[in-house]
Amino acid sequence: MKKVTVEELLAKAQQPSLDAPRLHKFYKGKMGTALKCRIRDFNDFAIWYTPGVAAVCKEIAADKQKAYEYTNKWNSVAVISDGTRVLGLGDIGPEGGLPVMEGKGILYKYLGGVDAFPICLAEKDPDKIIEIGKALQPSFGGYNLEDISQPKCFRILDELRSACEIPVWHDDQQGTACVTVAGLINALKIVKKDIAEVKVAVIGAGASGINIAHQIMLAGANGANMLSVDSKGILHRDRADKDNLQKNFKEKWDMCLRTNPKCKAGGIPDAIKGADVLICVSTPGPGTIKPEWVATMAKDAIVFAEANPIPEIWPWEAKEAGARIVATGRSDFPNQVNNSLGFPGIFRGALDVRAKTITDGMCIAAARELAKVAEDKGIHEEYIIPNMDEWEVFPREAVAVGTKAIEEGVARFSFPADVRFKMAEDIIRASREDVQKKMREGVIIDPDK
Amino acid sequence: MKKVTVEELLAKAQQPSLDAPRLHKFYKGKMGTALKCRIRDFNDFAIWYTPGVAAVCKEIAADKQKAYEYTNKWNSVAVISDGTRVLGLGDIGPEGGLPVMEGKGILYKYLGGVDAFPICLAEKDPDKIIEIGKALQPSFGGYNLEDISQPKCFRILDELRSACEIPVWHDDQQGTACVTVAGLINALKIVKKDIAEVKVAVIGAGASGINIAHQIMLAGANGANMLSVDSKGILHRDRADKDNLQKNFKEKWDMCLRTNPKCKAGGIPDAIKGADVLICVSTPGPGTIKPEWVATMAKDAIVFAEANPIPEIWPWEAKEAGARIVATGRSDFPNQVNNSLGFPGIFRGALDVRAKTITDGMCIAAARELAKVAEDKGIHEEYIIPNMDEWEVFPREAVAVGTKAIEEGVARFSFPADVRFKMAEDIIRASREDVQKKMREGVIIDPDK
Repeated sequence: MKKVTVEELLAKAQQPSLDAPRLHKFYKGKMGTALKCRIRDFNDFAIWYTPGVAAVCKEIAADKQKAYEYTNKWNSVAVISDGTRVLGLGDIGPEGGLPVMEGKGILYKYLGGVDAFPICLAEKDPDKIIEIGKALQPSFGGYNLEDISQPKCFRILDELRSACEIPVWHDDQQGTACVTVAGLINALKIVKKDIAEVKVAVIGAGASGINIAHQIMLAGANGANMLSVDSKGILHRDRADKDNLQKNFKEKWDMCLRTNPKCKAGGIPDAIKGADVLICVSTPGPGTIKPEWVATMAKDAIVFAEANPIPEIWPWEAKEAGARIVATGRSDFPNQVNNSLGFPGIFRGALDVRAKTITDGMCIAAARELAKVAEDKGIHEEYIIPNMDEWEVFPREAVAVGTKAIEEGVARFSFPADVRFKMAEDIIRASREDVQKKMREGVIIDPDK
Repeated sequence: MKKVTVEELLAKAQQPSLDAPRLHKFYKGKMGTALKCRIRDFNDFAIWYTPGVAAVCKEIAADKQKAYEYTNKWNSVAVISDGTRVLGLGDIGPEGGLPVMEGKGILYKYLGGVDAFPICLAEKDPDKIIEIGKALQPSFGGYNLEDISQPKCFRILDELRSACEIPVWHDDQQGTACVTVAGLINALKIVKKDIAEVKVAVIGAGASGINIAHQIMLAGANGANMLSVDSKGILHRDRADKDNLQKNFKEKWDMCLRTNPKCKAGGIPDAIKGADVLICVSTPGPGTIKPEWVATMAKDAIVFAEANPIPEIWPWEAKEAGARIVATGRSDFPNQVNNSLGFPGIFRGALDVRAKTITDGMCIAAARELAKVAEDKGIHEEYIIPNMDEWEVFPREAVAVGTKAIEEGVARFSFPADVRFKMAEDIIRASREDVQKKMREGVIIDPDK
């Protein structure tokens, strides 16, 4: 692996930041609406609007499930944020978060064929956000929560998940966890270790870290072999701050109870020592994780260093210290753990069967299918996860998620896997082709010409 | 004018209702999202999403007005409804209203180039709707309230108008009034009467009727010459139900104070007698308004019978009874009073200057320009308002509205009228061409082939 310097990597990460303001201003935003129906002449509006539309309205009034047939609800997702934890920028407000939510909107559309609309809320109170979330349901087939600070993000997800008739997803928690688990499954195949036996250290106990630990256990890991670490050290049930955790950080406290039964105390190096798997979703590096700590891991160690823009440890340092497989969050190193591999396909699948929710089982099914896409192509130390441009990933994930939803009884709508695959592939292809055609025809202008 | 029977007209109105379910099901909804920006390869997502997008987020965090430059906020409108008064169907719920709000979405896009998104709320409490309206602002450049029952619709409009930093419009009130005033201006030109002198009777005191009376006064009519009628008779300040009006129907009470200073009492025929102008936004006919009542109007009487699907009086009956000019809500009679002539151009204009609100002055400016478009082509008894397919209406309205916003100091952004005209024309043309091209290329499929 070619070594590069912090400066080189930061410079590389810097280029998109230099391009972004100019290009965002050029296009005046990244997405809008588009008609899906024909307009032959103005008489067609008598069908799409009053008086004809009334016939459709009456049918839905009698059976509101028909909104899935007569409107775009079946394919609409709200990307909901209050802007309190946008990227690594903290609480920059809902307007500040809007470019990210629009960005998520175009990822949904381009990769998953999903009509996702940014909903940035000038409201930080979790109870009010939950209330608004409940009220917005009629127009949407699902919600993607995004960039909401913790701990409230956990409660908002839980309450909306249980109150809503549509799937609710928090990508910072579930999305990152899903893609991480996919990579871990393949990494363990390469080193021939059983997930039920491996020792796992998760560094970072924010929204991602907590859900990663949770999903790794769902994928088969034994909580007794796991350690989670936050800024105060290894989580365990006798922590000095246990009262605060129980009261204000329920999910972290839950992790204290589900992992580390021997109440091992200490810091990051103590958690890493002897581990087979190290997963870091913490502070950007380099130097957050030291090579000498990785050197204390078990043979054939697996290291995920997911911080952006700079991983917690350089991949080459981790390798030199003995790690056999290293994954990061960056596209310029092998094995990128990229959320965009998850949500577009997962929602495609959930929407296609009109799922009422996205269960943990559906997340794990997505992770397993994501792993399988890479496995089918031939996994090795530097290819444990597909790339974003291997776009068969998304219809395959969609089918896996839909099938699991049907199995678990949370689908409102069931049809064969091959039909669902074709449908997902068609809708995603159409979405991509729309953009590419507009570029070829100059409808989407090239700002550099 | 060719006479047709109720049966023939109802049958004609029926056809779109027969087509609507099949066609709505075929397209599975009428609108979705679309990318506006190039995707050359997956590296572009590093500009549109993390890490590049952070640069844009930070700029907006420092100055949230920049959201208008870097995102699609500048062109986004939420069409907000609680489904409590959908078309003439009453409270059919937010899912039931969704096809109407999507329909409004495609009218906004096709006629005005505006990205309007349906937001149907599972929430009927006006205080909560106001709260949600305040919270949704960051993603949007404006709100179109729609199909919300009265009297709460008045308060929701007033409170959101005063609390929001973006324009808030209630189309059932303001839109209908704007187009009615446009028609009235031209009708009065034809009969050579001065708006300040004419006697006006407005039948119906719902959301439309109240605002029509209000806007007619803004356009120059004298309240002392005006009578408004609700289901209990002519409004005046000594009505038996005055306590209830003052308490629960503030806007209607306001109309009691602003019109009919002599406290004339009575029913519809009493209000019509001697009037120059009769405007009906009440119960579908025929027979709501009797020819013998129209016969008691002044010479060169003007009659607007706007109920759908059947006007309050047949146009030929009104004419035989002495009316010189008749307008209805139907596209198959001359002089259609059609809301779709208003909101797309009005919002186009408001958005293009980033207006903070849509003032009454901007409404009247839109009405005057709408009248002028028809006048420029040559008005006569059967052509007092443009048709929806004379699409120069929309950029012209946009310019008039934007100019008034600049004059009144509610525009955040000011540039010359000719630039605004070109911009509006270009964006509307692109929107229409997108649909027509997709139809030609079979991307929007013809269900009849």
